Amino acid sequence: MAKAWSLNEVAQHNVASDCWIIVESKVYDITEFLPSHPGGKQIILKYAGKDATAAYKPIHPENTLEKNLVEVKHLGFVDENAVAEIQEADANRKKTKDELRMEQAKLNKPPLKRVLTLQDMENVARDVLSYKASAYYSSAADDQTTHTENVRAFSRFFFHPRVLRPVSQCDPSTTILGCKSSLPIFISAAALAKLGHPLGEINITRGAGRTGVIQMVSTNASFSASDIAAARVSPTQPLFFQLYKKREDSEAEKLVKEVEALGYNAIFLTVDAIIAGRRDRDIKAPFVLEDQEKEVTKQQPSVEEPQDEGEDTLGTSGALVAANDVDMTWERTIPWLRSVTNLPIVVKGIQCVADAVLAAEAGVDGILISNHGGRQLEYSLPSIEVLYRLRMQRPDVFQRIEVHVDGGARRGTDILKALCLGATAVGIGRPFLYAQSAYGDAGVVKIVKILEREIVYGMQLLGASSVRDLVPEMVERINWQPELPMLAKL
Amino acid sequence: MAKAWSLNEVAQHNVASDCWIIVESKVYDITEFLPSHPGGKQIILKYAGKDATAAYKPIHPENTLEKNLVEVKHLGFVDENAVAEIQEADANRKKTKDELRMEQAKLNKPPLKRVLTLQDMENVARDVLSYKASAYYSSAADDQTTHTENVRAFSRFFFHPRVLRPVSQCDPSTTILGCKSSLPIFISAAALAKLGHPLGEINITRGAGRTGVIQMVSTNASFSASDIAAARVSPTQPLFFQLYKKREDSEAEKLVKEVEALGYNAIFLTVDAIIAGRRDRDIKAPFVLEDQEKEVTKQQPSVEEPQDEGEDTLGTSGALVAANDVDMTWERTIPWLRSVTNLPIVVKGIQCVADAVLAAEAGVDGILISNHGGRQLEYSLPSIEVLYRLRMQRPDVFQRIEVHVDGGARRGTDILKALCLGATAVGIGRPFLYAQSAYGDAGVVKIVKILEREIVYGMQLLGASSVRDLVPEMVERINWQPELPMLAKL
Amino acid sequence: MAKAWSLNEVAQHNVASDCWIIVESKVYDITEFLPSHPGGKQIILKYAGKDATAAYKPIHPENTLEKNLVEVKHLGFVDENAVAEIQEADANRKKTKDELRMEQAKLNKPPLKRVLTLQDMENVARDVLSYKASAYYSSAADDQTTHTENVRAFSRFFFHPRVLRPVSQCDPSTTILGCKSSLPIFISAAALAKLGHPLGEINITRGAGRTGVIQMVSTNASFSASDIAAARVSPTQPLFFQLYKKREDSEAEKLVKEVEALGYNAIFLTVDAIIAGRRDRDIKAPFVLEDQEKEVTKQQPSVEEPQDEGEDTLGTSGALVAANDVDMTWERTIPWLRSVTNLPIVVKGIQCVADAVLAAEAGVDGILISNHGGRQLEYSLPSIEVLYRLRMQRPDVFQRIEVHVDGGARRGTDILKALCLGATAVGIGRPFLYAQSAYGDAGVVKIVKILEREIVYGMQLLGASSVRDLVPEMVERINWQPELPMLAKL
Amino acid sequence: MAKAWSLNEVAQHNVASDCWIIVESKVYDITEFLPSHPGGKQIILKYAGKDATAAYKPIHPENTLEKNLVEVKHLGFVDENAVAEIQEADANRKKTKDELRMEQAKLNKPPLKRVLTLQDMENVARDVLSYKASAYYSSAADDQTTHTENVRAFSRFFFHPRVLRPVSQCDPSTTILGCKSSLPIFISAAALAKLGHPLGEINITRGAGRTGVIQMVSTNASFSASDIAAARVSPTQPLFFQLYKKREDSEAEKLVKEVEALGYNAIFLTVDAIIAGRRDRDIKAPFVLEDQEKEVTKQQPSVEEPQDEGEDTLGTSGALVAANDVDMTWERTIPWLRSVTNLPIVVKGIQCVADAVLAAEAGVDGILISNHGGRQLEYSLPSIEVLYRLRMQRPDVFQRIEVHVDGGARRGTDILKALCLGATAVGIGRPFLYAQSAYGDAGVVKIVKILEREIVYGMQLLGASSVRDLVPEMVERINWQPELPMLAKL
Repeated sequence: MAKAWSLNEVAQHNVASDCWIIVESKVYDITEFLPSHPGGKQIILKYAGKDATAAYKPIHPENTLEKNLVEVKHLGFVDENAVAEIQEADANRKKTKDELRMEQAKLNKPPLKRVLTLQDMENVARDVLSYKASAYYSSAADDQTTHTENVRAFSRFFFHPRVLRPVSQCDPSTTILGCKSSLPIFISAAALAKLGHPLGEINITRGAGRTGVIQMVSTNASFSASDIAAARVSPTQPLFFQLYKKREDSEAEKLVKEVEALGYNAIFLTVDAIIAGRRDRDIKAPFVLEDQEKEVTKQQPSVEEPQDEGEDTLGTSGALVAANDVDMTWERTIPWLRSVTNLPIVVKGIQCVADAVLAAEAGVDGILISNHGGRQLEYSLPSIEVLYRLRMQRPDVFQRIEVHVDGGARRGTDILKALCLGATAVGIGRPFLYAQSAYGDAGVVKIVKILEREIVYGMQLLGASSVRDLVPEMVERINWQPELPMLAKL
Repeated sequence: MAKAWSLNEVAQHNVASDCWIIVESKVYDITEFLPSHPGGKQIILKYAGKDATAAYKPIHPENTLEKNLVEVKHLGFVDENAVAEIQEADANRKKTKDELRMEQAKLNKPPLKRVLTLQDMENVARDVLSYKASAYYSSAADDQTTHTENVRAFSRFFFHPRVLRPVSQCDPSTTILGCKSSLPIFISAAALAKLGHPLGEINITRGAGRTGVIQMVSTNASFSASDIAAARVSPTQPLFFQLYKKREDSEAEKLVKEVEALGYNAIFLTVDAIIAGRRDRDIKAPFVLEDQEKEVTKQQPSVEEPQDEGEDTLGTSGALVAANDVDMTWERTIPWLRSVTNLPIVVKGIQCVADAVLAAEAGVDGILISNHGGRQLEYSLPSIEVLYRLRMQRPDVFQRIEVHVDGGARRGTDILKALCLGATAVGIGRPFLYAQSAYGDAGVVKIVKILEREIVYGMQLLGASSVRDLVPEMVERINWQPELPMLAKL
Repeated sequence: MAKAWSLNEVAQHNVASDCWIIVESKVYDITEFLPSHPGGKQIILKYAGKDATAAYKPIHPENTLEKNLVEVKHLGFVDENAVAEIQEADANRKKTKDELRMEQAKLNKPPLKRVLTLQDMENVARDVLSYKASAYYSSAADDQTTHTENVRAFSRFFFHPRVLRPVSQCDPSTTILGCKSSLPIFISAAALAKLGHPLGEINITRGAGRTGVIQMVSTNASFSASDIAAARVSPTQPLFFQLYKKREDSEAEKLVKEVEALGYNAIFLTVDAIIAGRRDRDIKAPFVLEDQEKEVTKQQPSVEEPQDEGEDTLGTSGALVAANDVDMTWERTIPWLRSVTNLPIVVKGIQCVADAVLAAEAGVDGILISNHGGRQLEYSLPSIEVLYRLRMQRPDVFQRIEVHVDGGARRGTDILKALCLGATAVGIGRPFLYAQSAYGDAGVVKIVKILEREIVYGMQLLGASSVRDLVPEMVERINWQPELPMLAKL
Repeated sequence: MAKAWSLNEVAQHNVASDCWIIVESKVYDITEFLPSHPGGKQIILKYAGKDATAAYKPIHPENTLEKNLVEVKHLGFVDENAVAEIQEADANRKKTKDELRMEQAKLNKPPLKRVLTLQDMENVARDVLSYKASAYYSSAADDQTTHTENVRAFSRFFFHPRVLRPVSQCDPSTTILGCKSSLPIFISAAALAKLGHPLGEINITRGAGRTGVIQMVSTNASFSASDIAAARVSPTQPLFFQLYKKREDSEAEKLVKEVEALGYNAIFLTVDAIIAGRRDRDIKAPFVLEDQEKEVTKQQPSVEEPQDEGEDTLGTSGALVAANDVDMTWERTIPWLRSVTNLPIVVKGIQCVADAVLAAEAGVDGILISNHGGRQLEYSLPSIEVLYRLRMQRPDVFQRIEVHVDGGARRGTDILKALCLGATAVGIGRPFLYAQSAYGDAGVVKIVKILEREIVYGMQLLGASSVRDLVPEMVERINWQPELPMLAKL
């Protein structure tokens, strides 16, 4: 019979060279795993020798630890006293100011019928989310310029609407990579949905199934690809898979074959996030929360040890480089992926015309023009601007492969602009994260319904009965900058 | 003798499948009419089994119910007790915060002589109007971008004024569709003027008659076309009619012939509003008012029934699609309209050069470049920008038909810019709604006088003695965005 | 012996058809003069039957009433009791809030050494001026767009400075219409300087004389042309005269000959202000002041007499049209002016390239590109933009006549930009009004000194030793809009 | 034995014509030196007859007074009583509000690990610096337009990132003027570092040495060139010297030879600051501080003596012109400098394409495109815009000489944009001043580490493994202005 550990015994193993943690009453020795933790070792060491359940659960798919059992050693369970002590500590824990704020916000949450726009939904979510989750979801690279400009860029495209065209029969549906979609949109992959709601990505799967739109599932989702496949509303509900390719081809091949077997319908190979994004707001969130709890005596030592001068953060970045394939190439990686799967392949993260052309020549099935929601390279051009340049400079590409786009679309009109310029469909990411955080799968359905209304309404007023009627002549890029309403609390 | 109903008897019929209402002491069974109510059935059901007079009157022309007597059954009058009870309930009703605010605002309303500009007039009106009316008048599609840009676009056109030209004799009058007008403007159709003032559109008719400008009357005006015709200052005062064509040609033909018989002088066929506009501010107004009345306990149920996920609002839209002709075409609709009337025909709602050319080829008498005050398709180009493109790309169109424009003009200089670019006249809409709301017909006259002064003043300083002297060379579209004063509380 | 009037006797004549006023103890019957008062009759009727000295003095040159003795009848003086009563009333008068504010502001006025920029000077003046004067000086047409853009336009011109050029000897002086000027600037005419300081334009004359710059004197100055000529620091101090031509050539000829005889050195014929400017802020000033004094009971009658609907203000405008020549032409007016004077002639108020070319062809000595400080036609192009177009489109004009520019220059760099583009000199208006209001002639000198420092400093850093070294290649019009610091309280 | 002076004796010599001061217990007669003091005589006269140590020390390198012993006479030391009195006065002095604010700010200074960006660093420094130092460091010419636009200009350049390129080996190092640098940046010269920290420029030397980047040392540094050379981490640590050439060639030659002998590696000849910069914020700082201390009685004399009208400030400017060579030329100065040194020569302060071409033709080794951080000529084009024009108009220059750029770079992406356009390295100035002020040499190291992370991260996401992979095609100048976060308290 396995040993039952006391809290005291576990607490002895609290350094990097000898590090145990407790997750849901199980005791693990993670000493060997520490250096390769994708999120860096610092974040784990805070829980060395302690119960880490609260921090672990909203981020990791179930059985994540079990899947690393080469490096992670399961040492058995804690004893009964430990269970009680953990529960009591949890119950007695004084709520933080942020938790109290959230509780109040949840009481005041408006009924769904008051949510008329995607911005309304984001506003609700930003109120009810923890500061940490809100900062993670909303954060983007550096000063968030590309993130902000993704949204603003759409405002520089205006319509040439056509009148006196019959539009009583208006059909917004389309086909994406061979799959039917009720609308010319899909749900862009976004990780860590559990941060906002216990059912996380599952909410999205259910909402997508009920409304006939397609979800793209991230390698880094907080549920596993199989959990999500299992949550489909019907066995034929399509799903796309966003692949973060690991350095080892074999490891990546295993993952691709797994999702193909699970019935996923396409592989989106991520090429714009070969190294870990670094987002100031996200990184600063713990400082903000710390200050919030602190009493007025803010006196701190102002001199620091030399190792605090930046090496640490470069180290985290290094860890992730180690995990992902930083040396992918057009010549090597695309043929390899083609060789291991029969699914359609889309290159996700195209950011300039030259690479769109290379993709068409490489024989993939599509591209997703995307800058990762502004979360990777600051000053990458807004996605709709890249799409526009592709339309102006290389219209032939649209004949050869499917062109998709994501980043910044928040209105039906945004989606219609992209379609006029030649996009097959537009990915929507953060709005679904916010929706499921605030209202679970009902929120996801609501987002689709809002967009359906806005898209159909826009098509009719543009004089279009089907997505085929949306043509480049209906859009003009203007040479001034419209005045926009204040964006939500960026 | 007809039965006199008690409030209690009426109150039994309070569901969609059996729905009675009271309007000005008359009892109606509107069960059959409910599904085809242009504003949706939800809004009526709030009054099922009750007195609906206060909600009904400011929106509907008189006898609207009587005109639907196929579907609406007049069941007789309420009894005397009911009349007394209704009056007492009305008298005892606690005033809402918005009503108290309005009362105070009316006491503080400045004398007309302090109103120097159209913006001043709007400011006064926004103070004295109910929140609901203010939201309805000021609202526009989505984020109000086209609405805002309609105004801002004028600011990118500057003058090349000419000096040392004799201008002591300066005549701003012109001819619009064969009718004399004291100024190169007309009053664009706007519905629901009764929301702001009991005399509604009648105020505008009287003010227009006294100042020699022409009013365009909406199919959806809160007075009937004949009431308005009867209110003319003289029998020859010209009026234009804005036609919302119903699906049934025969129904539309009847209406056209009616207004022709009433002496209206032109038909403006609306083509940019085939489906009902959806304006967030307008839709949110009841929520805002509700919150305003509510005490601090904002606790609400945060989960909702599934039918709240968007279907409802699509439903309302659907109802209106059912009423209007969504399948008009150049080939069918224009010849049909020509065949049923001898009046000049103007296509209202042209939003791009291509359709302006089609209109000229279709043989209509004129076009009105308009995006419905930004209330229909968000990101339709600002009207003055469309006019500018037409001047640059197809100057021949101005030789073939009259070109009018509306949307965003708030100053005499705005009107002069449009005239320089080739417009015959400029429509002004909301400012007249605001003016009649705040000061009745005196407000309407004031708007015309302000514009007269601004137009004459501008013509003289431009070196123009008549509208013929206003030429394209006098206007330059600049390539920067001037800094504008804050717009009124959008 | 003339009759001495009692206040009571004068007070009987208090209507438009029988209107007396008292100015500096003299009694005038102005009944016949009323209709032709350039400022409108309304403003006088407030003082009908009363002492008008306080309102009259800061606006009119001395003896203005005496000069109109055909229409104005001098009836003699008030009696001794009246003098005492007027003085006592003046002494007992409760100070207005604005007067109390001014007194406080004067106590806090910073020493001149703290005034480092023209903006600093304006800030001080805006504090110490009466609200009425401040509104009059700062006001411009409509929404002040041209006024604001005059200033902003300069910010779109950047320098290409040249290095490694010898600049130890740097001479900013130039010659304007044959007169030496210590700097390439002149003082643009501005009326009503007495509103800000009892010595008004005389302050400017003295300051200009002490620093070697040239003052342009307005026909509407609050001192007469001869008073100003008499105030010159030396008999050879040059002065320019800004002519508002009256309708009657003979009247205008008399004025031109008078100023020529007084030794003025050039005539600037005003062509951009043939009708009276109408500036909202100025017109609203009395309302603002009235509200400021009023207690909280703001209840006002909201209905007004019909004559309040705009006719009044058109009437004022009409009065001024009657006085000025609204029918000047290139063909008639320029030859006439040439025939009555030997002085150099400059056409003031050129606002487009076409008229600049006409001026060169008409054989005048120069033009002043100006939009009257944004006070006449709203949306006239900013002056520096007109200058830039002239340089790009018709560089030959600079060879044929002197080109001057005013409007919006507030920094030495602004002046250097205009000179690079070909201007001979730049007019500065409001800053001198503010300076003399705040510090008398010392303020005027300070402005010149600030500009001298900024101009010399800028020339040296541009690599220019004299104004001839400033060439078009040193300036580039950029295609973005720099961010500017907040402008003063517009 | 030299006389020991009492405070009373020294105090007799307190006028310009007989002026003594005490610095660190030594008594100097500076009467003859006064007129040639680079900072103007006014600033010294405040301490005439008094102890000037506190004002003198943070600005001057040690032994500055001793180096001027021709004009400055060392009269010996004060006596013991004087030493005690000075110390006591210093101890009893009531702290100013600004000093109290600084003390509090230092207590609240965040640990270095919270400083994630250069902006964070500036924010900390602006808190802990004296108002005077902060105003001096942050100030720029006139309205700070060029300073602000230096930063904003970078935001108009966006990337065309390339994907699927191997970047696991990413090397950001480069060679500048023959010296190895760990990053493609150098530390631009900035004077008066001691204002922010007692170790001033020495902090920068140490931090640069520890991180492998190169410091440029100003002629006006608050430590001498030899002190800084002596502070190098290793004898081979490279240093650049920024030369302000004095009028006398011999004096300048002496200085150049001195720094060459000290082992400096290049001479940057300053050509954009031949006259003293004048920065309003800096000049106004004493007024701000004075007002801060003052009680509410702000009553001041509003009339001033005539000499306050501007002459004074022009005089200061004149003094500096006297010291520097204002008559340098391409023909004379470059050959002279080449003749006196074997070091590489860079012309610092190129602001237009024409002068970049002249520099290439003059045979120097490089240019530094710079507008002196916006501190000299207002409306000089932003540096990155000049670099862009050079790339577009004269790409050949990049083949002939090294092109460097400084001004406004605050992010790794800014640096990468400049490198794509052809710059060899980018100078960073103010951020290092702020960093050493807030955290000494640890702050300097932190800045380099932040930039290293941002540069490497950006290169990898751009698809670049070395600085050679950064090419013009990777950058596009967009035609709109992105919305930027609020800049720090300018």
